[in-house]
Amino acid sequence: MPAPTRLADAPFLRACRGEAVEHTPVWFMRQAGRALPEYRALREKAGMFEMIRTPELAVEATHQPVRRYGVDAAILFSDIVVPIEALGVGVELKPGVGPVVDVPFRTAADVERLRPLEPEADIPYVIETVRALVADLDVPLIGFAGAPFTLASYLVEGGPSRDHARTKALMHEQPSTWRALVDALADISLATLRAQVEAGASAVQVFDSWAGALNPDDYHDHVLPASARIFAGLADLGVPRIHFGVGTGELLGLMAEAGADVVGVDWRVPLRAARARVGHGVALQGNLDPAICLADWSVVEIEAKKVLASNGGHPGHTFNLGHGVLPDTDPDTLARLVDLVHAS
Amino acid sequence: MPAPTRLADAPFLRACRGEAVEHTPVWFMRQAGRALPEYRALREKAGMFEMIRTPELAVEATHQPVRRYGVDAAILFSDIVVPIEALGVGVELKPGVGPVVDVPFRTAADVERLRPLEPEADIPYVIETVRALVADLDVPLIGFAGAPFTLASYLVEGGPSRDHARTKALMHEQPSTWRALVDALADISLATLRAQVEAGASAVQVFDSWAGALNPDDYHDHVLPASARIFAGLADLGVPRIHFGVGTGELLGLMAEAGADVVGVDWRVPLRAARARVGHGVALQGNLDPAICLADWSVVEIEAKKVLASNGGHPGHTFNLGHGVLPDTDPDTLARLVDLVHAS
Repeated sequence: MPAPTRLADAPFLRACRGEAVEHTPVWFMRQAGRALPEYRALREKAGMFEMIRTPELAVEATHQPVRRYGVDAAILFSDIVVPIEALGVGVELKPGVGPVVDVPFRTAADVERLRPLEPEADIPYVIETVRALVADLDVPLIGFAGAPFTLASYLVEGGPSRDHARTKALMHEQPSTWRALVDALADISLATLRAQVEAGASAVQVFDSWAGALNPDDYHDHVLPASARIFAGLADLGVPRIHFGVGTGELLGLMAEAGADVVGVDWRVPLRAARARVGHGVALQGNLDPAICLADWSVVEIEAKKVLASNGGHPGHTFNLGHGVLPDTDPDTLARLVDLVHAS
Repeated sequence: MPAPTRLADAPFLRACRGEAVEHTPVWFMRQAGRALPEYRALREKAGMFEMIRTPELAVEATHQPVRRYGVDAAILFSDIVVPIEALGVGVELKPGVGPVVDVPFRTAADVERLRPLEPEADIPYVIETVRALVADLDVPLIGFAGAPFTLASYLVEGGPSRDHARTKALMHEQPSTWRALVDALADISLATLRAQVEAGASAVQVFDSWAGALNPDDYHDHVLPASARIFAGLADLGVPRIHFGVGTGELLGLMAEAGADVVGVDWRVPLRAARARVGHGVALQGNLDPAICLADWSVVEIEAKKVLASNGGHPGHTFNLGHGVLPDTDPDTLARLVDLVHAS
């Protein structure tokens, strides 16, 4: 029996659908990462892309936080730039920096550098990793991909950017080139997500980590249509679709409107306010400040309880951090946090 | 006649008070800076602290954007860490990084490293610069200081921080040490602001550049009381008090409540939404995305008009960017922007 069916009643998937749960489910963005000593040990043997391309290693990195923390979901060990790198765009994952693109995208001709993704041929290792994971995981596996704006920003800026000035200039100066770029990226992300779900992933998360740099008008006019293309293209698969960004307080309603079943909320927006913005029938994910996890446990406990209180017992809530686990986080803190959320 | 009286009817000051204006006033955060070739020429001769401590140079840097752009206000050339550096806290202004503190603040004993500021003795050059400026400026001069949270974050982290994790830990783990720290910083900022106004500054801006890292509960409980101490301590001087931060969409109401006459808004929040949050009687400042100023003029024009339209003709509006001028900005773009705002 394929994993999605076997685990259909898992608390995480019930919460994504807004159904009653026995306990609030919890997972952590970047739970497979440098906060774990066992992860750092793995990474001593291999670089990021090598880990991702070696199913045995990617499977192990995905399993580690599930074993250690007892979280309610696993998330595929990968990176949002994997599909575009597989298509031949030169990308390096620089430690402490992030993705760096050899030759940034600046013109209409650059868009031609992206062809449609053929997952079985281009990223077979991702599919193999997903299949191996769902064969023995006892919790749902979340697949993921980058949202078109965030991927476009890496391609246009050539790496992480504080201001996204070139990206915004392209968006406004050459709207048809921009649209071609984000539509191509949407189709690539859609293809990898469909392949991950067909291989057994039970849910997907679309990361629009940089969307919070945009005002609502620009997001609505220049980004939402491309992101909506991904969500619409997943509808027939019946898996929960999570839409995540940071600094997106003004965008939460639009991010739901793009077609999300679950909207990720950073720590700046209380869940009760977020729920009013996403509207009826959309679940939430979040939103403890990851920086708080570096404080004493007594502080973490108080702040985690505030998050739960702000949710007000609504069943459509998956507990998470408002952004990724910080590398200096004590793993014991996250393990205790899982226990606290489960006991609440 | 002292400058504040002479210029009391200047459009910028009228807009800060919510009074009718003939044209929308405009100035730019970081208008004295690297976007100007004449500024870069000045900086070849002297480091930041040397410029700030040399009234002749600080006066010239303050004048440059007023001459070049025709903005409606000048802002003192200085830095928010100037008073604490003058008190003996070792701080370096690293180009491209920001303030770096030699020995970060971590304990209650560190708070003792801050004594009350005596402006005439500790920062005489600031007072001399303000006096020289108001003697010949034809537009109001804005004085400024750092808000307690942002200053505390530099002191605790030891420099700019993405996560503010140590700052947040101190705030929650040692609330009485935290309170002593932010109260001491509030008194220091208040002292420099009073001295600047007494020397002739017509308005003040309190920069809480990092406040957007906080959720509303933490801002309310751990930051607002100290910031309010500054605003209350300025009330008798009768000058407009501007309160600025970035990523503060959820905090705008609280930032007004702290005692601001004008709240600065970054580009993420449309002015019509911001006005509803700050409440009646509070003016706004903002909020064109500084990244947009790197695009073609046709784009800048459209986006600037959107900002003005979002304000809906309300008199309590000073046009500005949502954050500081980016160094790669073409000065001609800013000059045209001033003309556009004045003609609207």
